[in-house]
Amino acid sequence: MTDLAKLAIHTMTTKPWSLAKSVDAFARAGVGGITVWRQHLLPYGAAEGARMIKAAGLTCTALCRGGFFPARDATGRQAAIADNRRAIADAHALGAPMLVLVCGAVPELPLMESRSMIEDGIRAIEPEARAAGVALAIEPLHPQYAADRSAITTLGEARRLCERIASPWVRIALDVYHVWWDPEVGDEIARCGSAGLTAGFHICDWRVPTRDPLNDRAIMGEGVIEVAALRRQVRAAGFAGFDEVEIFSDELWAQDQDAVLARIIAAYRSLD
Amino acid sequence: MTDLAKLAIHTMTTKPWSLAKSVDAFARAGVGGITVWRQHLLPYGAAEGARMIKAAGLTCTALCRGGFFPARDATGRQAAIADNRRAIADAHALGAPMLVLVCGAVPELPLMESRSMIEDGIRAIEPEARAAGVALAIEPLHPQYAADRSAITTLGEARRLCERIASPWVRIALDVYHVWWDPEVGDEIARCGSAGLTAGFHICDWRVPTRDPLNDRAIMGEGVIEVAALRRQVRAAGFAGFDEVEIFSDELWAQDQDAVLARIIAAYRSLD
Repeated sequence: MTDLAKLAIHTMTTKPWSLAKSVDAFARAGVGGITVWRQHLLPYGAAEGARMIKAAGLTCTALCRGGFFPARDATGRQAAIADNRRAIADAHALGAPMLVLVCGAVPELPLMESRSMIEDGIRAIEPEARAAGVALAIEPLHPQYAADRSAITTLGEARRLCERIASPWVRIALDVYHVWWDPEVGDEIARCGSAGLTAGFHICDWRVPTRDPLNDRAIMGEGVIEVAALRRQVRAAGFAGFDEVEIFSDELWAQDQDAVLARIIAAYRSLD
Repeated sequence: MTDLAKLAIHTMTTKPWSLAKSVDAFARAGVGGITVWRQHLLPYGAAEGARMIKAAGLTCTALCRGGFFPARDATGRQAAIADNRRAIADAHALGAPMLVLVCGAVPELPLMESRSMIEDGIRAIEPEARAAGVALAIEPLHPQYAADRSAITTLGEARRLCERIASPWVRIALDVYHVWWDPEVGDEIARCGSAGLTAGFHICDWRVPTRDPLNDRAIMGEGVIEVAALRRQVRAAGFAGFDEVEIFSDELWAQDQDAVLARIIAAYRSLD
């Protein structure tokens, strides 16, 4: 049987469950890690969340999510930076080694301006991240979200952003859903790996047809992404962290979450 | 007033109209060119289509579309090649200087295999294209279509494919809808331009939110794409051809097409 020690699951994957319920169910199933979303942490607070996760024997892999730096005015950009600083403090208190950044975009702004605001925002919070020992993991998002969720759309662009900032605390979260289509994905996995930039690895699958651009992701093996092949490449490039299952799916959220968890674990074992 | 001599409109933009109706309406409006889709040409045939377009004083900018090379088996791939040869013959008879290629993808196939089949397919039909004097214009599609419409997703990938095939008859159709998000779009426009690869330029806009991945495109100025800036870059890189308006929109197709045409022309004038 596949060892589940390196399997982590995002609390958004089992969105209907509370953090307490996810912690309990993941631990009972033998899953090694949990990636915590802020809305699931909110009712407990970071200290209590840390206690629950530790008591269950789970590893907290990351806090999701910071980012969303671009805004129409300076007040909005400052508010985003302040919110990211709170997220860094929460990640530290939670014992999460990284904060995942969905970098943001504003439809009315030229992409280049959004990208510049993202770089400024990350530079602004890097000192707090460094002081807290929390890595900032830039997650390039699929280009379908370029207008309103992330002006950072490719691994190459995320890598160049990391290289410009040049801090060991600014790295990358690589999600197969967002990068599988990229003709340069193999080369970029290798480059990110050899530069030590790959901080997180997220898996799910791309359903055909995709019925909703945000909430119709699939369990690994139920779509078109070559997840096992991408994981081999990521590992060959030096990544030794968790495989984090992150699935947004209205269809799955409407189902019995224990059954969904069992399907995810079976699909995960099938990747080997 | 903006000269409309370099404006062309795709017959799919006014999908509810017959080719005869589009030809008549575009010519009356002073539009210079028409890009013909095969389903609109079918009831007339290429010779009659050519006669109508010439009689109206329009320039035929392209025939849409060939491609869809990947298939599950050799029979399917041969059928695709045969269909592309018919399309080349139709483009020649129509007087279209190029055939636009939507390259295709099969969900069950690894992307690399689809890409290999695409290259094989284009190489197979290049002799007919050359003999007919019809350029093959590879249109990289937005990554949201990577699973089932085009494994060619970026200008860079299309350019490298052209460079490998290295025929003056294998070039690129650049559609702002498909490439606007790309962090390398400016560099690639310059590279494609200086290599003489840019054969066609398609414009429309990206609506936020996008309600349908295929048929919710917007008129220029009604979305987030910096169309005028991209056109400046494309022209600065040496492209002197038509601006082809290609809009798939259930919303617009349901409206009065004369009114839609008037809006498109007004939006086109606003780009200057």
